[in-house]
Amino acid sequence: MKVAIVMGSDSDLPIVLKAVNILKEYEVPFEAHVMSAHRTPAEAADFAKNARANGFGVIIAAAGMAAHLAGVLAAHTTLPVIGIPVKSGALAGVDALYATVQMPTGIPVATVAIDGAANAALLAVQILALGNEQLAKRLAAEKQKMREQVAKKDLDLQEKLA
Amino acid sequence: MKVAIVMGSDSDLPIVLKAVNILKEYEVPFEAHVMSAHRTPAEAADFAKNARANGFGVIIAAAGMAAHLAGVLAAHTTLPVIGIPVKSGALAGVDALYATVQMPTGIPVATVAIDGAANAALLAVQILALGNEQLAKRLAAEKQKMREQVAKKDLDLQEKLA
Amino acid sequence: MKVAIVMGSDSDLPIVLKAVNILKEYEVPFEAHVMSAHRTPAEAADFAKNARANGFGVIIAAAGMAAHLAGVLAAHTTLPVIGIPVKSGALAGVDALYATVQMPTGIPVATVAIDGAANAALLAVQILALGNEQLAKRLAAEKQKMREQVAKKDLDLQEKLA
Amino acid sequence: MKVAIVMGSDSDLPIVLKAVNILKEYEVPFEAHVMSAHRTPAEAADFAKNARANGFGVIIAAAGMAAHLAGVLAAHTTLPVIGIPVKSGALAGVDALYATVQMPTGIPVATVAIDGAANAALLAVQILALGNEQLAKRLAAEKQKMREQVAKKDLDLQEKLA
Amino acid sequence: MKVAIVMGSDSDLPIVLKAVNILKEYEVPFEAHVMSAHRTPAEAADFAKNARANGFGVIIAAAGMAAHLAGVLAAHTTLPVIGIPVKSGALAGVDALYATVQMPTGIPVATVAIDGAANAALLAVQILALGNEQLAKRLAAEKQKMREQVAKKDLDLQEKLA
Amino acid sequence: MKVAIVMGSDSDLPIVLKAVNILKEYEVPFEAHVMSAHRTPAEAADFAKNARANGFGVIIAAAGMAAHLAGVLAAHTTLPVIGIPVKSGALAGVDALYATVQMPTGIPVATVAIDGAANAALLAVQILALGNEQLAKRLAAEKQKMREQVAKKDLDLQEKLA
Amino acid sequence: MKVAIVMGSDSDLPIVLKAVNILKEYEVPFEAHVMSAHRTPAEAADFAKNARANGFGVIIAAAGMAAHLAGVLAAHTTLPVIGIPVKSGALAGVDALYATVQMPTGIPVATVAIDGAANAALLAVQILALGNEQLAKRLAAEKQKMREQVAKKDLDLQEKLA
Amino acid sequence: MKVAIVMGSDSDLPIVLKAVNILKEYEVPFEAHVMSAHRTPAEAADFAKNARANGFGVIIAAAGMAAHLAGVLAAHTTLPVIGIPVKSGALAGVDALYATVQMPTGIPVATVAIDGAANAALLAVQILALGNEQLAKRLAAEKQKMREQVAKKDLDLQEKLA
Repeated sequence: MKVAIVMGSDSDLPIVLKAVNILKEYEVPFEAHVMSAHRTPAEAADFAKNARANGFGVIIAAAGMAAHLAGVLAAHTTLPVIGIPVKSGALAGVDALYATVQMPTGIPVATVAIDGAANAALLAVQILALGNEQLAKRLAAEKQKMREQVAKKDLDLQEKLA
Repeated sequence: MKVAIVMGSDSDLPIVLKAVNILKEYEVPFEAHVMSAHRTPAEAADFAKNARANGFGVIIAAAGMAAHLAGVLAAHTTLPVIGIPVKSGALAGVDALYATVQMPTGIPVATVAIDGAANAALLAVQILALGNEQLAKRLAAEKQKMREQVAKKDLDLQEKLA
Repeated sequence: MKVAIVMGSDSDLPIVLKAVNILKEYEVPFEAHVMSAHRTPAEAADFAKNARANGFGVIIAAAGMAAHLAGVLAAHTTLPVIGIPVKSGALAGVDALYATVQMPTGIPVATVAIDGAANAALLAVQILALGNEQLAKRLAAEKQKMREQVAKKDLDLQEKLA
Repeated sequence: MKVAIVMGSDSDLPIVLKAVNILKEYEVPFEAHVMSAHRTPAEAADFAKNARANGFGVIIAAAGMAAHLAGVLAAHTTLPVIGIPVKSGALAGVDALYATVQMPTGIPVATVAIDGAANAALLAVQILALGNEQLAKRLAAEKQKMREQVAKKDLDLQEKLA
Repeated sequence: MKVAIVMGSDSDLPIVLKAVNILKEYEVPFEAHVMSAHRTPAEAADFAKNARANGFGVIIAAAGMAAHLAGVLAAHTTLPVIGIPVKSGALAGVDALYATVQMPTGIPVATVAIDGAANAALLAVQILALGNEQLAKRLAAEKQKMREQVAKKDLDLQEKLA
Repeated sequence: MKVAIVMGSDSDLPIVLKAVNILKEYEVPFEAHVMSAHRTPAEAADFAKNARANGFGVIIAAAGMAAHLAGVLAAHTTLPVIGIPVKSGALAGVDALYATVQMPTGIPVATVAIDGAANAALLAVQILALGNEQLAKRLAAEKQKMREQVAKKDLDLQEKLA
Repeated sequence: MKVAIVMGSDSDLPIVLKAVNILKEYEVPFEAHVMSAHRTPAEAADFAKNARANGFGVIIAAAGMAAHLAGVLAAHTTLPVIGIPVKSGALAGVDALYATVQMPTGIPVATVAIDGAANAALLAVQILALGNEQLAKRLAAEKQKMREQVAKKDLDLQEKLA
Repeated sequence: MKVAIVMGSDSDLPIVLKAVNILKEYEVPFEAHVMSAHRTPAEAADFAKNARANGFGVIIAAAGMAAHLAGVLAAHTTLPVIGIPVKSGALAGVDALYATVQMPTGIPVATVAIDGAANAALLAVQILALGNEQLAKRLAAEKQKMREQVAKKDLDLQEKLA
């Protein structure tokens, strides 16, 4: 199963690349698209409607301000949809966070932190790993590596402060 | 030209009735519908796409929480869309306000106050009045009446405090 | 019918120019003014009172902080008034948003996003287009163009990530 | 010199009465009025313009939501204007606080707490007391009484917890 | 695969029951537990560490205020963890929302709306449905039913307003 | 009567200078001091207690973060105290605004906008002008000048956009 | 060493009683007082100045709105001061939280949750327990009891849901 | 007794160094560590569990975003835990403040200002000073010095403005 990464504007790409890199690292197949809930609503709806049939298992959507993209995609699919609220404009992402997470009953969006694209991809990998023992092992290995990196930084700190 | 009032859920009706009453008062023809950006996205899209051809001049949309309804309708029409953020849930309408007003360039939503349904209808009347001298006169008359009511309340206050 | 663009201070001009450009693009006649709800209240009131008679169809008002300008203009006219909350000062536009959108019943202000001047102008065009078939066609054409631009960016992204 | 208390709506009266009572207590002459920045803008402007000539020394203005009243009065007078943001609607007074306090340079509004009508009146008395030795003494006496009341409550608490 | 529903306090049960009911409706096996990130941290850690081996596929965690539960469980597992911020206390759930969603890179929590327990369960079903054709079909059927319910409410509204 | 300007830290001086300049412009005598509610509480208390006797008519206090300075001074005097919330730290002045304006009954602080030092000084001048005809005239003249400046900027704008 | 509990108003007593009960439970000697940063500033200052000499080890201060009490006490002592922001008024405790926690460098206040009086007392006990082995043992025992209570509630839940 | 300073990420070091410097100044022994509530939860738990036995008297924890570190440490010890919410990410530390301070009953965290590391260390010194007369004297001396510095700055200001 592939992961879809949809961004509302190509200006979101710098944030979204963090998700792209995680998926490449885990060798999870993905497609990335620019599609807008407001400017290309028909394309977004069609993409979501056909996503399961087209081999997608998870959809990640990144958008800022009145961030409707994840919600619009979720309206058209029963695949899990992960929303990344993007920081932009005067409200610095609080608007995007509320517009992404406060979904009505029946249409969930799995929301991550503002600009939390790396975690959105990791969540997608965790979901796919339920049916993929290989991925599950890699996630556990990465978790272990992360632990070691922090331990290493703790040691570095001891030197720095000594 | 008719006004469309679309609400995301029938639980929004008590708020929306304030708009209905204004339109009746001004004898502006209208239709009211329950349509959801998330639960009936196709119906909402179709409604908006055909709204101009079906004789509508303005669309009013009321929704709470991650209030995408006004934005979704605006994505499918070039008619003016008025958004009413509805107070509901833990964030008391701030989420709905941000999700309604913070629209990206190209897709405006004319947003009124949280639960401001009466003003949404008045705004629709003001818009239609640009092509309807009768309505314009009634708006001016109501404005005058409003002025007199406040003056009357000021007099009442003098008595009360005397 | 002309559009009026009123800004509370000439420091709002960089934001307001986005509205000016949209109106020029659509060849909609307009006037732009610096007028302050607090510093030139009489001028602002007079302008609004005479706006309909002077050939205006819509008034756009841009102001920051305790942004009273749109509300003050709306108090003196029954024309539709569009408010642009401008980001400035410590509260970064949240104050202007609340001061613009939370109007009392009877005096609506059609509020757009913080710094959303382009959408304010588009909303004005949408309103005028109700009585102007030409404008309605151009709005539809621009919407189509916007759609194509996003599709183009999606293609560009495919190349970039390939 | 008299104090003017202006409220945007007679629904603000329960809050405003706390100010009325303080002024009565200090025997400061006052007038109370219902006047709206949006519904009776001309009356509000005239009142403010003539306030100094009519014997007023301080104007207190109470309003909720997009609370423009204090700002509009301040635009038309150089008397000190005290603003009381009133709690009402979905934003519970934060909108009124921002709309009252975030005034642009040149037009100050002396803002007190949300629903802080008693303090608004006290502030007016403090201002008038600069030219009225009698009032200054009473303010000092009340301050002393307040101190004793707290000391009394402390004693009561000792009994209660003993 | 089972779903785990963990709540930080038994006072969260009224909210959590909405998740329980959805899982029963979809006949998805689940266990529900009271475990606290702060009061029983060892139990919570052990539960998460062994969750995959114990046959769980998804963990749902509900907590209020400084809602650390979902994050603590996510720290100890690579299963997808869904967080429900619960409304409680003076901040009405905004604290719980931020504490649940703003996770650091490496430890995602799939956050739903404040008190959004039904959507948390639906999201869990969507995740499990990737490996369960039966569930996927039921999700699609429920989505269709939801659509029909809204259409029915629209018809009801026509009668009510006729 | 003199005006006292008290700042909680000398880092507030750049903001406070705007108040200094206004007072110089109006030739109002003043003293400026660095005094802290927390670091020199006794000095601050003494200053406030003796302020009236020392010839002060108004106290202006500027402070950031948990801005207690204005409140502490107000606790020790019955002179009008004007509070300037200063923008600093992570909360950008919202903390200072709330800590300055939300005073309990009995101890008012006349609060101006975040960083609104010029208006604080103008408010002080307005207060002193109640007993000083000269100052009242200058305030009216400045208000007129302000009006002309805006009118001038409106003319400039016409040229710029012509 | 005794603990002092100071509240800004006797209306805070219902909240403060949670702290009283914890201290009684741990048999820690304490005094409770009503003292106001604004209404009895001299008494509050004196109390804090003499607190160490009078046998106090920790001061707990509870106050709402512009909650200066903890900060004012901390200004006059080098004892640890614990602040309880009390929920009251339109801002529901956010103002009290900011006014309590955002202290300038040099004058710390150990802030607990809004209305978190029980935790304030527990923190005081933890501090005193550093020099009191007995108290340390009781804290550990209570922590263990708390753990068992949650485990018991988990068992109860299993029955309830079975 | 030693003080432990734990930071969630080595990117928090610039903030944490302000605490390190205070402790060095007061010659209080300390250890500083990088440990994460999410990435090294076992290490963090072990550290807290053994902290008392290992000679620590106070634990300071600094973390940003969904700042669980202080709470996780507090879950495993009955030592006083001081939390420093660190400003980072789109919400600028408000998330960290809420996640640190809004702890449930039974598990207090003594929270200081966002980025308030110096005060966190001072609070630790104040706590240790209860059992260390020497430290208490130095705290009093520093408080006096602080007072003199402000008085000095007041004098400097007089020169600057003369």
